[in-house]
Amino acid sequence: MAKKKLNVGLVGYGFMGKTHSNAFLQAPRFFDTPYEPVLKAVCARSAEKAKGFADTWGYESVETDWRKLIERKDIDVIDIASPNNTHAEIAIAAAEAGKWVLCEKPLARTAEEGKPMWDAVKKAGVPNMVWYNYRRVPAVVLLKQLLDEGRFGRIFHYRSQFLQDWTISEDLPQGGQALWRLDSAVSGSGVTGDLLAHNIDMAMWLNGQIVDVTAMTETFIKERMHNETGKKQPVTIDDAAAFLGHFENGSMALFESTRYARGHKALFTLEINGEKASARWDLHDLHRLEFFDHRDEGRLRGWKSIHITDGDHPYMKNWWVPGLQIGYEHTFIHQVADFLIAAGAGKSAEPTFEDGLKCDYVTDAVLKSAKSKQWESALPPKE
Amino acid sequence: MAKKKLNVGLVGYGFMGKTHSNAFLQAPRFFDTPYEPVLKAVCARSAEKAKGFADTWGYESVETDWRKLIERKDIDVIDIASPNNTHAEIAIAAAEAGKWVLCEKPLARTAEEGKPMWDAVKKAGVPNMVWYNYRRVPAVVLLKQLLDEGRFGRIFHYRSQFLQDWTISEDLPQGGQALWRLDSAVSGSGVTGDLLAHNIDMAMWLNGQIVDVTAMTETFIKERMHNETGKKQPVTIDDAAAFLGHFENGSMALFESTRYARGHKALFTLEINGEKASARWDLHDLHRLEFFDHRDEGRLRGWKSIHITDGDHPYMKNWWVPGLQIGYEHTFIHQVADFLIAAGAGKSAEPTFEDGLKCDYVTDAVLKSAKSKQWESALPPKE
Amino acid sequence: MAKKKLNVGLVGYGFMGKTHSNAFLQAPRFFDTPYEPVLKAVCARSAEKAKGFADTWGYESVETDWRKLIERKDIDVIDIASPNNTHAEIAIAAAEAGKWVLCEKPLARTAEEGKPMWDAVKKAGVPNMVWYNYRRVPAVVLLKQLLDEGRFGRIFHYRSQFLQDWTISEDLPQGGQALWRLDSAVSGSGVTGDLLAHNIDMAMWLNGQIVDVTAMTETFIKERMHNETGKKQPVTIDDAAAFLGHFENGSMALFESTRYARGHKALFTLEINGEKASARWDLHDLHRLEFFDHRDEGRLRGWKSIHITDGDHPYMKNWWVPGLQIGYEHTFIHQVADFLIAAGAGKSAEPTFEDGLKCDYVTDAVLKSAKSKQWESALPPKE
Amino acid sequence: MAKKKLNVGLVGYGFMGKTHSNAFLQAPRFFDTPYEPVLKAVCARSAEKAKGFADTWGYESVETDWRKLIERKDIDVIDIASPNNTHAEIAIAAAEAGKWVLCEKPLARTAEEGKPMWDAVKKAGVPNMVWYNYRRVPAVVLLKQLLDEGRFGRIFHYRSQFLQDWTISEDLPQGGQALWRLDSAVSGSGVTGDLLAHNIDMAMWLNGQIVDVTAMTETFIKERMHNETGKKQPVTIDDAAAFLGHFENGSMALFESTRYARGHKALFTLEINGEKASARWDLHDLHRLEFFDHRDEGRLRGWKSIHITDGDHPYMKNWWVPGLQIGYEHTFIHQVADFLIAAGAGKSAEPTFEDGLKCDYVTDAVLKSAKSKQWESALPPKE
Repeated sequence: MAKKKLNVGLVGYGFMGKTHSNAFLQAPRFFDTPYEPVLKAVCARSAEKAKGFADTWGYESVETDWRKLIERKDIDVIDIASPNNTHAEIAIAAAEAGKWVLCEKPLARTAEEGKPMWDAVKKAGVPNMVWYNYRRVPAVVLLKQLLDEGRFGRIFHYRSQFLQDWTISEDLPQGGQALWRLDSAVSGSGVTGDLLAHNIDMAMWLNGQIVDVTAMTETFIKERMHNETGKKQPVTIDDAAAFLGHFENGSMALFESTRYARGHKALFTLEINGEKASARWDLHDLHRLEFFDHRDEGRLRGWKSIHITDGDHPYMKNWWVPGLQIGYEHTFIHQVADFLIAAGAGKSAEPTFEDGLKCDYVTDAVLKSAKSKQWESALPPKE
Repeated sequence: MAKKKLNVGLVGYGFMGKTHSNAFLQAPRFFDTPYEPVLKAVCARSAEKAKGFADTWGYESVETDWRKLIERKDIDVIDIASPNNTHAEIAIAAAEAGKWVLCEKPLARTAEEGKPMWDAVKKAGVPNMVWYNYRRVPAVVLLKQLLDEGRFGRIFHYRSQFLQDWTISEDLPQGGQALWRLDSAVSGSGVTGDLLAHNIDMAMWLNGQIVDVTAMTETFIKERMHNETGKKQPVTIDDAAAFLGHFENGSMALFESTRYARGHKALFTLEINGEKASARWDLHDLHRLEFFDHRDEGRLRGWKSIHITDGDHPYMKNWWVPGLQIGYEHTFIHQVADFLIAAGAGKSAEPTFEDGLKCDYVTDAVLKSAKSKQWESALPPKE
Repeated sequence: MAKKKLNVGLVGYGFMGKTHSNAFLQAPRFFDTPYEPVLKAVCARSAEKAKGFADTWGYESVETDWRKLIERKDIDVIDIASPNNTHAEIAIAAAEAGKWVLCEKPLARTAEEGKPMWDAVKKAGVPNMVWYNYRRVPAVVLLKQLLDEGRFGRIFHYRSQFLQDWTISEDLPQGGQALWRLDSAVSGSGVTGDLLAHNIDMAMWLNGQIVDVTAMTETFIKERMHNETGKKQPVTIDDAAAFLGHFENGSMALFESTRYARGHKALFTLEINGEKASARWDLHDLHRLEFFDHRDEGRLRGWKSIHITDGDHPYMKNWWVPGLQIGYEHTFIHQVADFLIAAGAGKSAEPTFEDGLKCDYVTDAVLKSAKSKQWESALPPKE
Repeated sequence: MAKKKLNVGLVGYGFMGKTHSNAFLQAPRFFDTPYEPVLKAVCARSAEKAKGFADTWGYESVETDWRKLIERKDIDVIDIASPNNTHAEIAIAAAEAGKWVLCEKPLARTAEEGKPMWDAVKKAGVPNMVWYNYRRVPAVVLLKQLLDEGRFGRIFHYRSQFLQDWTISEDLPQGGQALWRLDSAVSGSGVTGDLLAHNIDMAMWLNGQIVDVTAMTETFIKERMHNETGKKQPVTIDDAAAFLGHFENGSMALFESTRYARGHKALFTLEINGEKASARWDLHDLHRLEFFDHRDEGRLRGWKSIHITDGDHPYMKNWWVPGLQIGYEHTFIHQVADFLIAAGAGKSAEPTFEDGLKCDYVTDAVLKSAKSKQWESALPPKE
């Protein structure tokens, strides 16, 4: 049976534009989605670059002004894959125009900026989602299932890292199109919004609300040449961020993200220790879940490495056969599949803008604590 | 610049039909190929099944007779993804019709059956390729580069396994569409042609010709219900196969494949030990290469786990960023990309039908030795 | 050539009494030490228990009052392996009597208690050492060598954990001979002095002084039956402790210890990230060092697992042959060997009482910060 | 209670003399043995070397003729740690003198040479044991228990390797005291008797009798300087050996040993695949057992890494606490403990001379098959 067409308008053509576009094309082939996304238009300030991207991915048209894209009647969904400082304005306008809205993470540079975004999609009643793609790693979804089944008992510890090493060189410049993540005016923060936000989003999904934090941040390299001015300028982002804190369930939080951990490319890790079980996962071997079950026979207890490639593992019956792994891009495909299925039922898929906003409150608290040198609340303000 | 269209006619719609179709669609988006494959027609005996497959993957038409498919003027490439007993007839007819030919592995059920296939494509002068997809795992290609650079010195040992466990249950039937791999009339052999052929193809690519073997095979479960007759019948395939032997370069060969290794889903492994270096790889973590370099400083020698996700690793600059892994399906995408590039230059991509035939001679020798209980030559006959 | 005899008087006969006694006997057989320890006397309040221990280990005599032991002329070294609350008094008396003094870690329950101990051995001029045995793991010593050689460049991060899970059950009592570690009156603190002290001692040896901390501690189980009163009483120790902080060299510190990490028995870990290299180690595979060297050829960079069993690895030429691992008890043997060699040259072996005291200042700061919810200085007071 | 004294006379003072001596001293301290070995005399052709060894280990006296040693009334046990070509003569003489006999592995250079040794101890009725020490690795003993409990069901595969790399250099000489293992006149064979014998002994203990084999051996370096003649001479040993075969229980055997596997120091591995479970172990991490249990819940199946350091693991309650590993030398200590306990009950501890002889029949078959290029029986001859 033919699937309904869903017209997508993409803003941005960088790395995330690529992952999203691939996901729009692949999802309906591998999953039973009610919609088939149609790549209707891609929008970028440079018409030439938009055209090149459109050619590769099969977008039918290009726009150079996102306002035009939103005005188009033939667009159903606005997908925001442009830098962080553009998220709020585009998302709010799209919601007001009645479009469905997908937004790259973090939702906004600050919770203050993100709050009106959540308000806008709520008011418009449109399906919305933030691209915290790692929630869709099958191993992580299995862990979520095990937690929901109560297999861990009382939780004592949750720890998570995101370790990279790509900014160690002093010769790396900052800013501009390629390196806007190093320019806080555009990105809002350094690793806190870029990496730590992933750790936090996943943690709160798995283990509940983080209530308070004591944090430290560091900027190891103080000045870098700025791509827009061509001059050495102070670096305004955090190169590394770490915090201790508490979850609402009483467990202890230990988080860390950095771009200065030599030898780690994208080592997103998590570990959770409960009364009856523990588990750990990392992105460098994303197809494995390590699981320790205290209810195993005593002398045979140990950490089990589960190769998440079987038909009874989340999402995996739609892929290959046992033993054959999937990779990074599949997390986006799963997210599109879930979004299409949810939207088909008139709902948003998690993480919604509300979830994205909750994460922003925590990242705000981390940055605030690092400055104040005090414990800070990570809770959303009472309404 | 728009790519030239290349019209594909696929025979078969099973698991391999899916991996090939995905590769045809993805390759031109991620790689700079001279052609863009067009999914023109899929052929299957059941029109209904062909139609369902065509809908999912976007094939423009269906055929129920492969002869019709080959007759079609609008088809450039015939891709054979049907069971082993059909390879020879289709491939020869396709070559004679001047089509380019892609054939699933093994080339044929025996070298005797495969020889005319190689003769046919050679005579027709058409680009051809056998889908030994694991040659395109980036980690394995890196290993090939290191070997070609002479980093290993004299080779002493090469060992390789393919361990599965999916046929251990006595209740599993044999034969029919779903389980033709367990019916030697269709498949030619059991694990020898299905799994061991992968080990052998890769080994000969990396380490050269295998010259002789002493082998043993085993059929652990002697009778299974046959899906076509509904009756218990003797099992005619080998459930497990192992051999010792020698490579032309003097190194020792140790190979094993089985579907009775509990706990292993698709554990294709290889290890090579040279005078100056060693390496190992396995399919369960296909994005890693383990490398030992004896030229490292003495006290710091050890096995290094290289996470093959960097831009300077084979194929990887076309995918994501360091740390983000790819999976199983990508090996087919790489193979299509290489085939398109080679064909654009009027050549075949390896492994060609000739390579596929050489592998058949070795698998024949393994089966022969297991029967004769003698050492047997694994060399192609002198012409 | 016969070695000089060195008469040892041991206080305590528990787990640590066993590790020390074994080390005294083994060290002179495997290492070229100037002295051969003679197990002269073991002291415990229970004569019967002392006698049983003496029989097993070959102690020539027993004492039931440590003051008597110190008075004995035929004792050269006092080794303190009794609970934390006894360290100060015994050590000071031993030093004043001119004995050499070995003391289990932590030096004392607090820095305030430990300061006079350091003063006493300094004043007496006697060789002294604290049993932070993990400094003598060969893999860790190799890491220390690599750091001293400048192979890591500027250090960005140092993180360390000590994870256990043996106190999760609510039925476990506290206090008494078996469980004095759960009674803060005897132990001084919970995991902070017991486990975190190991992390800190090793970190400061490898990476320099810790200058400040922000910490949190937790007592997950609030009441336990006390072995001495037979009644449920509040638990006064910390079950878990974590802190963030800074090293003097500007690197970021992240530390954690707990007895509530299900699945981990004695998982002491450390990782250090420098500009040019990174390394990690853990106690569950203590014979391995993981090393990442950024100066390796780009496409061949990876984490190397060095199996620390070669003759050119620290201490290992005195043991077996490459590939054959040693274990936990060997760290004590190495420490005795180093102590004997240093003492033979009239010196103390590290960590000295001064080192032990520095560690106490940091653990004090951790406990203080956890209470004050402020950043606290971890430096020794200016004299 | 004081233990009975058992007077040991050791022949040989090399590497194995050291491991045995340490085991004699340590066993009674850590295990509840009925005897305490007394190091009465060590015998070596060089009085000076014997004296040096005696000083280090505390042997009370030295002998330079093993016949004298056997004649001594004050010796209860003869322990043979001298090269392979001396085993038979000494063991037979010792048995005839009524001594208990311990013999390094392999029992003899050939089964023909070993048969009279087994006959002699049988006739004399003296406790006897062969030092196949790896049977006493706690992880391996746990595996044995699991097998005996029937947890694996029908066994399909057993594979085992012993990989080393220490003879790759052409400059390494052969023969003499240091390198008698490279001189087949002394050793009997190369890796077959030295390494493969370990694989075989353990395999037959765990999985039963090996019935037939097809083998290959290789001598990679054809000539080496001989330490006794100072001249280049043909190398007469096998540098590498591999075989396929069958166990009596119908499972398939795949074995390999070599000293040319670059990067492996002493990598003794084994894996067993049964219907219901699989397990693997290796010597480089001897304190771990990898276990796969098919009866685990489907989506949670995986390989479990069991850290063999708990009180309910074999031998481990006599050592430290959970998480703290033991090493290589402990296998000998366990073997002495078991021997003393068995001898105290008037029995031999396994592996007895009979077990050692059975292993010799298999290694003989391997060498014979490598020469004949035929399958050969590995069974002991029918009596």
